[in-house]
Amino acid sequence: MTYCVGMMLDAGLVFMSDTRTNAGLDNISTFRKMFHWDKPGERMITLMTAGNLATTQAVVSLLDERTKAHDERDPSILAVPSMFQAAKLVAETLREVIAKQAGEGMEASTAFNATLIIGGQIAGGPPRLFLIYPEGNFIEAGSDTPYFQTGEIKYGRPILVRAFEPGLSFDEAMRLLCVSFDSTIKANLTVGLPLDYHLYRADSFEIGTTGRIAADSEYFQAISQGWGDALKNALDSLPVFGD
Amino acid sequence: MTYCVGMMLDAGLVFMSDTRTNAGLDNISTFRKMFHWDKPGERMITLMTAGNLATTQAVVSLLDERTKAHDERDPSILAVPSMFQAAKLVAETLREVIAKQAGEGMEASTAFNATLIIGGQIAGGPPRLFLIYPEGNFIEAGSDTPYFQTGEIKYGRPILVRAFEPGLSFDEAMRLLCVSFDSTIKANLTVGLPLDYHLYRADSFEIGTTGRIAADSEYFQAISQGWGDALKNALDSLPVFGD
Repeated sequence: MTYCVGMMLDAGLVFMSDTRTNAGLDNISTFRKMFHWDKPGERMITLMTAGNLATTQAVVSLLDERTKAHDERDPSILAVPSMFQAAKLVAETLREVIAKQAGEGMEASTAFNATLIIGGQIAGGPPRLFLIYPEGNFIEAGSDTPYFQTGEIKYGRPILVRAFEPGLSFDEAMRLLCVSFDSTIKANLTVGLPLDYHLYRADSFEIGTTGRIAADSEYFQAISQGWGDALKNALDSLPVFGD
Repeated sequence: MTYCVGMMLDAGLVFMSDTRTNAGLDNISTFRKMFHWDKPGERMITLMTAGNLATTQAVVSLLDERTKAHDERDPSILAVPSMFQAAKLVAETLREVIAKQAGEGMEASTAFNATLIIGGQIAGGPPRLFLIYPEGNFIEAGSDTPYFQTGEIKYGRPILVRAFEPGLSFDEAMRLLCVSFDSTIKANLTVGLPLDYHLYRADSFEIGTTGRIAADSEYFQAISQGWGDALKNALDSLPVFGD
């Protein structure tokens, strides 16, 4: 399993992904699930992957290779004219990889499927955020639903539903995401630290603040430990039944 | 879908279940999922059901019929000597119903499966709480895991994990459950009001406080509306990222 969240704020885009992958519960590894492409001053694109690791790595490798051999296959993700076209390119690549693996007669106990979140900005357009399905189609975030989750979405969803606001600052959004990820990590062994994040400032057209929150992060520990007490206080602030 | 929670407190047992059933998303009904058997002064048993409605109704009807025809089939749920035997009887009845439906050649797009929570107390023993699987085996709650959820368990779990304590009063437990159910109802259309509850006081050997929380419940509305603000305040009490 996996947990990824992409958010569209007034300030820009926020991405967070865990790094745990598993083939069965007795085979656990750490892999990066967040990837970036940029041409500073002109475009910045971030991709987060959930699903079959062989599939998602193949998608990222193909996208990468095609940025380096322009004459061979155009347009690449560094050349598409809009975020819509970037999402379309990634979706087609995903579908191609899944079809190829299934078509070549590979068999697996789990499907080769994957679900992707792609967000970014290309000069001439606003920041945009998309969720790409394994079928190769995709949906775009808007003001009604300004964030997407993939993977194990349920445990961390109630706090997002209640506390998300487009006006959050990056630091407030990171706090919210840390709580959402902590709730998920506490409940599902197949989601785990470290967490990768990227804070993209609107109209900056370059990779923003990126980093990794590891198990020894003092901040994450403070959130994880503080949230239990904060929740209990929140509960205590409500009337008990029968009052 | 369904959401049921059974809790073992120092004060006794607490049960809550929703009432929404659905056959597809376009066919939604209201059915009771909580049932009681008691012999005041000697035993009290509560059962909550999740899963195929025909299966769970057949289980309850069979258990009921067998309490009325003692000579025909013994022991009934009103005659078994312990909660362990009560759980075993219910589990066997569940397995019998599932096997009969499948064995008679009925086919369905969904399985005939069901998962049950049974709790109560029989004179000579303490209050006990069991989770019964469709396979007909079951597990018992203990001090490490003093509550069981069935159905759509994920959305409402983080608050239970963080705020449950065996020392909660009934009124505090009801508040906690209302928050957990509210988080679930907000996220999954197939869980819905009204909610049935039962507060069983340890060593009372009779049905305790029971009731139904409907959509127009002022208490539930206060919880539902207050929890959003309470959560935001809880989040605000934690340090923002980068501080």
